[in-house]
Amino acid sequence: MRPSGRTPDQMRQVTIETNFSKHAEGSCLIKFGDTHVLCTASVEDSTPPWLRNSGKGWITAEYGMLPRATHSRSSREAARGKQSGRTQEIQRLIGRSLRAVADMSGFGERQIKIDCDVLQADGGTRTASITGGFVTLHLAFQHMKKLGMIEDIPLTDHVAAISCGIFEGTPVLDLDYPEDSNAQADSNFVLTGDLGVVEIQGTAEEKPFSRDEFNALLDLAEKGVSELVELQKQAISGA
Amino acid sequence: MRPSGRTPDQMRQVTIETNFSKHAEGSCLIKFGDTHVLCTASVEDSTPPWLRNSGKGWITAEYGMLPRATHSRSSREAARGKQSGRTQEIQRLIGRSLRAVADMSGFGERQIKIDCDVLQADGGTRTASITGGFVTLHLAFQHMKKLGMIEDIPLTDHVAAISCGIFEGTPVLDLDYPEDSNAQADSNFVLTGDLGVVEIQGTAEEKPFSRDEFNALLDLAEKGVSELVELQKQAISGA
Amino acid sequence: MRPSGRTPDQMRQVTIETNFSKHAEGSCLIKFGDTHVLCTASVEDSTPPWLRNSGKGWITAEYGMLPRATHSRSSREAARGKQSGRTQEIQRLIGRSLRAVADMSGFGERQIKIDCDVLQADGGTRTASITGGFVTLHLAFQHMKKLGMIEDIPLTDHVAAISCGIFEGTPVLDLDYPEDSNAQADSNFVLTGDLGVVEIQGTAEEKPFSRDEFNALLDLAEKGVSELVELQKQAISGA
Amino acid sequence: MRPSGRTPDQMRQVTIETNFSKHAEGSCLIKFGDTHVLCTASVEDSTPPWLRNSGKGWITAEYGMLPRATHSRSSREAARGKQSGRTQEIQRLIGRSLRAVADMSGFGERQIKIDCDVLQADGGTRTASITGGFVTLHLAFQHMKKLGMIEDIPLTDHVAAISCGIFEGTPVLDLDYPEDSNAQADSNFVLTGDLGVVEIQGTAEEKPFSRDEFNALLDLAEKGVSELVELQKQAISGA
Amino acid sequence: MRPSGRTPDQMRQVTIETNFSKHAEGSCLIKFGDTHVLCTASVEDSTPPWLRNSGKGWITAEYGMLPRATHSRSSREAARGKQSGRTQEIQRLIGRSLRAVADMSGFGERQIKIDCDVLQADGGTRTASITGGFVTLHLAFQHMKKLGMIEDIPLTDHVAAISCGIFEGTPVLDLDYPEDSNAQADSNFVLTGDLGVVEIQGTAEEKPFSRDEFNALLDLAEKGVSELVELQKQAISGA
Amino acid sequence: MRPSGRTPDQMRQVTIETNFSKHAEGSCLIKFGDTHVLCTASVEDSTPPWLRNSGKGWITAEYGMLPRATHSRSSREAARGKQSGRTQEIQRLIGRSLRAVADMSGFGERQIKIDCDVLQADGGTRTASITGGFVTLHLAFQHMKKLGMIEDIPLTDHVAAISCGIFEGTPVLDLDYPEDSNAQADSNFVLTGDLGVVEIQGTAEEKPFSRDEFNALLDLAEKGVSELVELQKQAISGA
Repeated sequence: MRPSGRTPDQMRQVTIETNFSKHAEGSCLIKFGDTHVLCTASVEDSTPPWLRNSGKGWITAEYGMLPRATHSRSSREAARGKQSGRTQEIQRLIGRSLRAVADMSGFGERQIKIDCDVLQADGGTRTASITGGFVTLHLAFQHMKKLGMIEDIPLTDHVAAISCGIFEGTPVLDLDYPEDSNAQADSNFVLTGDLGVVEIQGTAEEKPFSRDEFNALLDLAEKGVSELVELQKQAISGA
Repeated sequence: MRPSGRTPDQMRQVTIETNFSKHAEGSCLIKFGDTHVLCTASVEDSTPPWLRNSGKGWITAEYGMLPRATHSRSSREAARGKQSGRTQEIQRLIGRSLRAVADMSGFGERQIKIDCDVLQADGGTRTASITGGFVTLHLAFQHMKKLGMIEDIPLTDHVAAISCGIFEGTPVLDLDYPEDSNAQADSNFVLTGDLGVVEIQGTAEEKPFSRDEFNALLDLAEKGVSELVELQKQAISGA
Repeated sequence: MRPSGRTPDQMRQVTIETNFSKHAEGSCLIKFGDTHVLCTASVEDSTPPWLRNSGKGWITAEYGMLPRATHSRSSREAARGKQSGRTQEIQRLIGRSLRAVADMSGFGERQIKIDCDVLQADGGTRTASITGGFVTLHLAFQHMKKLGMIEDIPLTDHVAAISCGIFEGTPVLDLDYPEDSNAQADSNFVLTGDLGVVEIQGTAEEKPFSRDEFNALLDLAEKGVSELVELQKQAISGA
Repeated sequence: MRPSGRTPDQMRQVTIETNFSKHAEGSCLIKFGDTHVLCTASVEDSTPPWLRNSGKGWITAEYGMLPRATHSRSSREAARGKQSGRTQEIQRLIGRSLRAVADMSGFGERQIKIDCDVLQADGGTRTASITGGFVTLHLAFQHMKKLGMIEDIPLTDHVAAISCGIFEGTPVLDLDYPEDSNAQADSNFVLTGDLGVVEIQGTAEEKPFSRDEFNALLDLAEKGVSELVELQKQAISGA
Repeated sequence: MRPSGRTPDQMRQVTIETNFSKHAEGSCLIKFGDTHVLCTASVEDSTPPWLRNSGKGWITAEYGMLPRATHSRSSREAARGKQSGRTQEIQRLIGRSLRAVADMSGFGERQIKIDCDVLQADGGTRTASITGGFVTLHLAFQHMKKLGMIEDIPLTDHVAAISCGIFEGTPVLDLDYPEDSNAQADSNFVLTGDLGVVEIQGTAEEKPFSRDEFNALLDLAEKGVSELVELQKQAISGA
Repeated sequence: MRPSGRTPDQMRQVTIETNFSKHAEGSCLIKFGDTHVLCTASVEDSTPPWLRNSGKGWITAEYGMLPRATHSRSSREAARGKQSGRTQEIQRLIGRSLRAVADMSGFGERQIKIDCDVLQADGGTRTASITGGFVTLHLAFQHMKKLGMIEDIPLTDHVAAISCGIFEGTPVLDLDYPEDSNAQADSNFVLTGDLGVVEIQGTAEEKPFSRDEFNALLDLAEKGVSELVELQKQAISGA
């Protein structure tokens, strides 16, 4: 039995509140249960140096966690003077995931920066960030289209992410913090709308897991991402 | 006429939503119009080294701004590797202001850290942070009292803050961003519930101002802080 | 009674030794009693990026304290790898104060950097820095005028600064260290030659102070700044 | 056809030269073709703070690349003043991988630090680091056993790693740099001696890949790791 | 002919003003012509960690240059966030030089920090720092003796330093800046009172120099240090 | 008697293995006994800013030590976030030494970066770096000549370096670590092929040394460098 009472293949309640932020070209507050991430997309009028005169743009992401987003307070990265390895790992992952479904030639020599800031954490912050980040990216492209900066939305598919793991011997979908901190295996899956694999990160926590177990996790992930893509579609169309 | 249509002595609508955060000992989302600051109070079981064995605790504050809280995106301080001078100035001010109304001998050798993170900025983020920070500090003390860690709330008075300035020749209360960026003078007042002065920071922006003008600003501040203290009382009692 | 034996409205002896430094375009060693600050003005032939092609120049300040300027040695900021929040606060204040009386269109697209380095500290280092910084700025402009780089000194007034505080219940002028560390309130006033307010920073140290007390401090400050401006005039004309 | 002329399931020639370093408790120079990594294990007599009095030790890894290990020179991380996100990601991965097969209660309150420094890079530096890192860890444990510090080698299995990818439409084993920089997908597999999964990192480079493709990569990885484990056994027994 | 009109073996005028600083246990302002260095000695009541319980103390030095000590302004190291290689080289040299004549067992488990801050630079700042640093160290020991903290001055000899170089083909003593920046060779000699060698740093600037030339420089240095030691003696006895 | 059994004027066995690295324009692994340094030369197509449009190039060096190059592990400079003073001192010395024999006008507006990374340390890493660094510089110039980028090798002479010291009262050549850590004096000599002095760094470790002792060290150094230059010639011609 899961601590939350959910069935093994049941996600937490996911909500996406678009246009949370007044200033950003795209924004949403995405909630996976008690995990709350504020995502914004900022469109800047220049591309990174290595793409100048290529006709291509770029998409990057930055990730942060408010000091008291967690159960006990963590020190503030800005005060410590550097981002942790974990933070850098996550923001690189978000950026790669979003670029995988975007056409870099489709929005001019611009840069879109996706900021994912965790207001409250209860497991799965990186997968929530990718899922919400996609929504803000789409909203920013809609905004650009409305202003005549682009003609079409330069996205080839949806992309969303979910974690799965083996908790007390059972493969389960969408780990929350109590599960995550006790899971035998923890995997993050980034999949497209038609379930192509963009990124897989599987880690054995206590002891190695088998190929069969891994396949069970991937089955769950496909179910979860399908549901998330539906929610993204509603959020994007209703924004 | 003010850009927002407010009268000179009219504050923006201020709301305080307590217990915004699941994990913190005290928390609120405070809004001064479009300026939104998430404040949390974290109680830690050790005092700074210089107070060990003194029987006293300590209160500090940290301040941050999400990169896209502002009209155009600012770079992330954690990524840049240091906090700006402005950030440090503000967080030192918040800490001093809260310590001014707290009895450091009244909550044991503990440290309370107030985090003020600006989710959206439209002028007056430091005064909102102080006003909301006081609320979270009070909530944290209530929490400690409920747990039997302290017998009384070790606060001697309320403390709240407001900015005033001279906009197009007229002294006005609670500058929003369009006013702030064009004001001739900009002053921040931190006052207690009985209108004692905790901190005054007055800055001439374009040309020096006169003593009379300064007194007009202080009159407005007294009115504003009185209103803020009422709102703090409601927030604290209703939490 | 003040520890130094001064009357409440009596400043320490202030001396300004101009041309202390061989290389700088303007320089002075300013002493407020045992507080000694070496100020230099350096004229650089380029303006900051955001002012290019505006026809305007810029004035900034940097502040430092020698490690053993203080009673016990403080660690060296260059060795620690960053400037403290206090240092940044002070140097921002010095820069703002000097810019308040300068015409940025009057000296071409140049940048003037004011360095204020405390050789010995006994309270009031920031106010000595502003007062001495103005002298070096004036001297640098005189130097530029002599070289034909400018026709007129682009300063609209004098600017000088003094601290006042409430010590053992009495408002006093120009706090020295023994007073500063025991004052109930500590305020820094930056005023122009005709007593316009450029900046006010008032801080309650132990308990809030009243509006009347604050007005008493401002009265003292007006007296102090008037005396400092006279000393500046002598220093500038005699240099 | 692969640029190197290898068949799809053929690894580069792998050699492991043990005791490369005079000072370290364990060391080897591992070569995957033109990728050369110097691995050392250092045994330190204290465990990290969070494990004190737990009876447990810890294993961490650090990774570095000499500036001219690569085709064109990269800047030195020590000179830049920070490790890149990529470096931190890799060294975290090496540490997790080695801890997955070690019994933390089996070598006292000690810390073993594995340094993996790339002398020459031609693709696959992280997988070579893990594979060689395991060898040095085993050698260090042998050294400790010889000295009577431990009775048994506290390792539950071998661990080794290999990259696989889809190059010109074909799944191939052990990508070298020319393949890596043009692969459609790039996956790193960390497996144990009995082919349990310790870590999987799969990334689509150009377009998402299918579940079938992923399974083909995992098949190759199982073959590759089996061969690597044989080479580890020879290296360890012959050292 | 030397730009200053000095003869080849003539030093600049050297003056040592002791007790320049009110707070330090020892201090002096040392001038080699237009090179002015403020040296202070600070006695701290703890020794570095690696000497605890050894009965020994330690002596270190820190070196800094005010931004406008030089002909054109250099950036402030505290603002840049790190000390340059040159600064570190110099402060390590000062520390080694002073430790060479001190008995580390003779002043308890204390640490003495020598700060050498260049107020004005005209060549030879490191040699002035060593020469003045010795004076402050002696003064600090006198101070400690007066307070009964030590019985004898734990110094085995004097130490002083001077630069020599080959300027327009001629070996000359005590290079000033115009010479230093055009010298063919530049050597710094740190010698004791009885002319033992503590440190020699000789650098060819344009082309290698010969052994004979080097010996001529050393002859000059011996003359110069003898004169400096006399000045140190006067300063120390008269303080 | 020396710990290694060498005679006082006997160097350790020195070997130079050229073309150790596949990618660099010049490279060698130089061994002075158990001290092993990997040197590479990287040719970059731009000169530093201050030499632009001067027709001149530049040569710099960087130095590093693998964490476990030493008897006990040192912390990684990239992880600590800065290079030590010692590292900076050494890399500045290597750069100066190589520039002393190179004609900066002879290879266009290019920059050559010499990286010296210590794989194993047993005393004398800086002298091995200079000696090996010269070889890689020569190889890089040979490479450029072969490609027609330059017509002649722009080197005016060889340069090599050796340490000498006073060990148990006897001047000895080429200190290894057991000698270095117990020497009374330690001097590094950088000499050209015809024994011109490029750099001398002599340091008394325990007590000052005499001028005669210093001359004995210089005699040894001349012998040592003569031998090193022969080895350089063989390495360069055979490469």
